[in-house]
Amino acid sequence: MAMDIAGAFEDNALFETVRRVAVDIFSEEGLKKRFAAGKPLKIKLGADPSRPDLHLGHSVPLRMLRKMQDAGHEIIFVIGDFTGMVGDPSGRSKARPPMTYEETRANGQSYFEQVSKILDPAKTQITYNSEWLGKMDFADVLKLAGKYTLARIMERDDFKNRFSASQPIGLHELFYPLMQGYDSVALEADIEVGGTDQTFNLLVGRELQKDYGQEPQEVITFPLLPGLDGVEKMSKSLDNYIGIDEPPEAMFEKCMKVPDSALRDYFRLTTDMPEEVYNGLLAQDIREAHFAYAREIVTMYHGEGAIERAEQRYRDIASGQAPDNENMETLTISGRASVVELLRRAGLAASNSDARRLIAGGGIKINGETVADLDAKIDSDAVLSRGKNKFVKIKIIN
Amino acid sequence: MAMDIAGAFEDNALFETVRRVAVDIFSEEGLKKRFAAGKPLKIKLGADPSRPDLHLGHSVPLRMLRKMQDAGHEIIFVIGDFTGMVGDPSGRSKARPPMTYEETRANGQSYFEQVSKILDPAKTQITYNSEWLGKMDFADVLKLAGKYTLARIMERDDFKNRFSASQPIGLHELFYPLMQGYDSVALEADIEVGGTDQTFNLLVGRELQKDYGQEPQEVITFPLLPGLDGVEKMSKSLDNYIGIDEPPEAMFEKCMKVPDSALRDYFRLTTDMPEEVYNGLLAQDIREAHFAYAREIVTMYHGEGAIERAEQRYRDIASGQAPDNENMETLTISGRASVVELLRRAGLAASNSDARRLIAGGGIKINGETVADLDAKIDSDAVLSRGKNKFVKIKIIN
Repeated sequence: MAMDIAGAFEDNALFETVRRVAVDIFSEEGLKKRFAAGKPLKIKLGADPSRPDLHLGHSVPLRMLRKMQDAGHEIIFVIGDFTGMVGDPSGRSKARPPMTYEETRANGQSYFEQVSKILDPAKTQITYNSEWLGKMDFADVLKLAGKYTLARIMERDDFKNRFSASQPIGLHELFYPLMQGYDSVALEADIEVGGTDQTFNLLVGRELQKDYGQEPQEVITFPLLPGLDGVEKMSKSLDNYIGIDEPPEAMFEKCMKVPDSALRDYFRLTTDMPEEVYNGLLAQDIREAHFAYAREIVTMYHGEGAIERAEQRYRDIASGQAPDNENMETLTISGRASVVELLRRAGLAASNSDARRLIAGGGIKINGETVADLDAKIDSDAVLSRGKNKFVKIKIIN
Repeated sequence: MAMDIAGAFEDNALFETVRRVAVDIFSEEGLKKRFAAGKPLKIKLGADPSRPDLHLGHSVPLRMLRKMQDAGHEIIFVIGDFTGMVGDPSGRSKARPPMTYEETRANGQSYFEQVSKILDPAKTQITYNSEWLGKMDFADVLKLAGKYTLARIMERDDFKNRFSASQPIGLHELFYPLMQGYDSVALEADIEVGGTDQTFNLLVGRELQKDYGQEPQEVITFPLLPGLDGVEKMSKSLDNYIGIDEPPEAMFEKCMKVPDSALRDYFRLTTDMPEEVYNGLLAQDIREAHFAYAREIVTMYHGEGAIERAEQRYRDIASGQAPDNENMETLTISGRASVVELLRRAGLAASNSDARRLIAGGGIKINGETVADLDAKIDSDAVLSRGKNKFVKIKIIN
């Protein structure tokens, strides 16, 4: 992918770049010194062992890591396979059965491939925390636990809130921050980065390193990108995300849906566009700013060549035209059929009565013309559409 | 030792015997059924891995265990060597350095020898919980921790109180009840007994056995014997104890010091004397009741032959006489010496000035006569005494 990297960093340039985006740095002085020392640093980022689906939210720290790589540092991903393989011992979250060794490795490989869209694979390492946590015995666990008091663990917001709301906290859960922190000890990490929701866990690593006689890692937290709903943080499970693996058309369309109020943050956190440029765009025309953002993102992840087609498709949809897309879904039937039946069979309506309701509501078109008649039939090839962006090509064979 | 065991138990006799002394039984129905089933049961008692010094407080559950042994059941001691070898990982209690494997085994052996004064060694087994806890890895620990919630562990009084008083609780400490409970799982214990201060931990064992698919053990808690101070529970560290290993003379003397208000409990919990007998004694003359108690205890732990000498020594001390004891401490000097110097050299006074203060206070005697003169000297064999029970024989050689 085309990644606009500013080139070699001198003096405090890398530190200043990071600071502009970071929410918190513990400590600023420490980070400045480490960057200035001119030695390759080990920079840690934890990763979920479940199958990753990276989106623009993940790209916020990843893009910063890329800048650190370009300055000569090494990125180490820690796949938390150990807890993934243990599963939830309390049996409360039935939705997450324990993962096998093979699954965690396959997911790690997939993770590596996806981050390689942003990072330099040659300076990127994937590790699995079962490598050290799996070797600890009960005595080692007690030693680790002895480094922390209940009161300090309970400072973590979610523990505090659940405890005071009398919601159950499994004793094993208290270990997860310690395990994540111990990963920093095992790796002798110099820096750990994460989202602001990880601040507590990242600082546990810093504390534990001191307890184990190491120089405490510098901790950098990055903002959480708001999702397309403009409310929650971007996440796959909330379906408010722009995946970095998505095809150009879907990516373009989703970029156009970024809430107006969030667009400045999207520019700032997910692109390298200079501040004065996007501020100018935002000040002039918010719709044109969206187009500029969509073009920028598609270029970053698919190259400039992918823009034209993705943009054209978006404009077609927006104007109510069927997109000229060879990959449009197609339903091939023999003979004529009622629009009601076709809507149902094409998946545009849940049932015949749903289809009738949609027609009655004026939301169904044939070749761009609104269907008014509930008994309308189609007897030659046509594009059936629902709303602005659901299209199915109907092919009639005889 | 002479142990007055009631013979074979029939029907509910063993259950009734236990219930008369027990504070709580979880559950009474379950225990009754187990005893009635006529199968040998595994009865667990946890033991501290530090060098034991068993006293009459320990004898309360041990005497009940003996009765269970006589009914055919097996007693299994679990020496908590695992935690002893780990030590305190938080480093807070510096007083308890980690123990070596050899120390824990030597202490276990000593424990076995001491409990053999009350129990039948042939039906007594010593186990060490490192045998199973030492084999658990981090994943096993998480599984164990996942069986319990923070809220349930925090029901334990000392955790609750320390947490609300903002006193530090090391995270490792939360594991100790789980480890003790897991011992019951590893042993598949049928019954666990302990003092009332262990109730929480014993019930954790019961809960965990259910979680691991076992029949939950019956739990019997026994009262804590008050110490000679009549306030705290009997314990070596508070120096308010009667050790079962102490010589008859010391034992007799300590029995005479049992607070009047506690004597009924001492009879009930540490002897087999029928209730109507000791109630009669207590109603008649509290001092004679003390003598009867002292004779009973000395007989139990040293045999009837030891009574006379121990009682005579006590009576001598009580009347201010030097006891006729060949083992009396002796200081042999040449020539004459001042009482002040002798008090110091015999260890009856900390310093010459301390010795002068004692003489001035009227607390020092030579052969039963109070010394009035600060410059008094001794030039022939004599017994020097301080207060009612500290005597040193002075031998003069020329």
